[in-house]
Amino acid sequence: MVLINGKTGDKISIQDRGLQYGDGVFETIAHRNNKAEFLEQHLSRLIEGCKVLSIAFEQIETLREELERVFQSLEDQTAVIKIIITRGTGRRGYFSDNTEIPTRIISSHPFPSHPEQYQTEGVLLRFCEQTLSTNSRLASIKHLNRLEQVLARNEWDDPDIPEGIMSDDEDNIIEGTMSNIFIVEEGKLFTPVVTRAGIAGVMRAQVIQLATRSGLSVQERTITRRQLAEAEEVFVCNSIIGIWPVYAISNKMYPVGFITQFLQKALAECDK
Amino acid sequence: MVLINGKTGDKISIQDRGLQYGDGVFETIAHRNNKAEFLEQHLSRLIEGCKVLSIAFEQIETLREELERVFQSLEDQTAVIKIIITRGTGRRGYFSDNTEIPTRIISSHPFPSHPEQYQTEGVLLRFCEQTLSTNSRLASIKHLNRLEQVLARNEWDDPDIPEGIMSDDEDNIIEGTMSNIFIVEEGKLFTPVVTRAGIAGVMRAQVIQLATRSGLSVQERTITRRQLAEAEEVFVCNSIIGIWPVYAISNKMYPVGFITQFLQKALAECDK
Repeated sequence: MVLINGKTGDKISIQDRGLQYGDGVFETIAHRNNKAEFLEQHLSRLIEGCKVLSIAFEQIETLREELERVFQSLEDQTAVIKIIITRGTGRRGYFSDNTEIPTRIISSHPFPSHPEQYQTEGVLLRFCEQTLSTNSRLASIKHLNRLEQVLARNEWDDPDIPEGIMSDDEDNIIEGTMSNIFIVEEGKLFTPVVTRAGIAGVMRAQVIQLATRSGLSVQERTITRRQLAEAEEVFVCNSIIGIWPVYAISNKMYPVGFITQFLQKALAECDK
Repeated sequence: MVLINGKTGDKISIQDRGLQYGDGVFETIAHRNNKAEFLEQHLSRLIEGCKVLSIAFEQIETLREELERVFQSLEDQTAVIKIIITRGTGRRGYFSDNTEIPTRIISSHPFPSHPEQYQTEGVLLRFCEQTLSTNSRLASIKHLNRLEQVLARNEWDDPDIPEGIMSDDEDNIIEGTMSNIFIVEEGKLFTPVVTRAGIAGVMRAQVIQLATRSGLSVQERTITRRQLAEAEEVFVCNSIIGIWPVYAISNKMYPVGFITQFLQKALAECDK
């Protein structure tokens, strides 16, 4: 099912600034067990992203009603729900007089079928050549300018490598093409800062919260390639895949460690 | 008139990767005096952009025929023609198996009505706070990820300031939000390199060619804010506006100089 500004249909105007300039934000939400997981956190980030882009999105209650309609329509209750908010349809040119009404797009998609052992035995990652450019204003939010991720993800087509790691121009580790990354060093958790590049994932925030509540030390900081190589455990996470242990990056092997497994269990048991 | 893959209509699928990720390129062409100006140069850049993004765009002859249909339809022969090529409609996710057929969108728009004195007396510019991030692979091409330009252009709404100057993170001058910039120093022309950030504009290339043919020295190099401040002449250019002399940037004044006027005349007289 696709709802565009509350109406069923799967087409938008070519004048929409979402197409013209990537002028908008999006969220990807797991709908499982009759529940849209971490819905409030996703909606909060969506609103935060609109604020950063000065998109006058005031239709949050309408969006909630539309989401409810899409949730009700799901035959199989397991689905990926994608929300896109664009600045709306405007005249040609970068300038917006902010009279546009933001476009709301909600679509449901089949849940991706990843092998079960990704959760238990972990995944094999690779390094991407495509870097993430730094932009303090656009960092953290989940906007529609995703060419860097597209180019990075299309550097390989080996189906046994489900994710690649992206760095900034200074070779600091930032994230996966579709996930955030955590490492364990001397029993402590670290994840890259995403204030200059990268996305502040909803699952990333959940992992930080779960770890903190469990008394684990978690710190956001710069992570170099060397620190990644020397890590005791590595995992990646997002709202759809949850937490995937990393068993190898290229030919460097990692164990599926205690802290990763602990967090997977905590995530499985937490209130979503 | 709007043609999408050869059919009239103004809507595209929300699954189009142009909307989902800004996964495509565009061109903005001046149609005047019964002619699409610098059409071959625009099409060359479009094809080059597709190559950089690995978009398998092989429908160039079809695109030419569709362009001809749009040109024929123009009631007022003066129009802005915009072409968008996206990677096409795909499944959710950054990965593309390159089986998508690229989407071709051609639209015609009214020519913007700028005051006549912009050509003769010049324009007032400002500096934008929003910087351009550096990305060697994406630099130069005219892709659909334009949030930086959108944010920069929306820093002001004074209608008397038609353009703003954008810098990279090291405070080097790169371009305007919608134009390229040239300066004159000791009678020689300079324009910023656009291999790390910025767009290699079709009009920028024409200006370089016209200047070179006339025996003027033209060089692409790094231009600092100080060098801009000390320039003898400054102008901005793009395919729609042609060449606009700059009479002031914030409160720094410039003359409408001899070389700028010479190039305006050469442009007016050249074979477009």
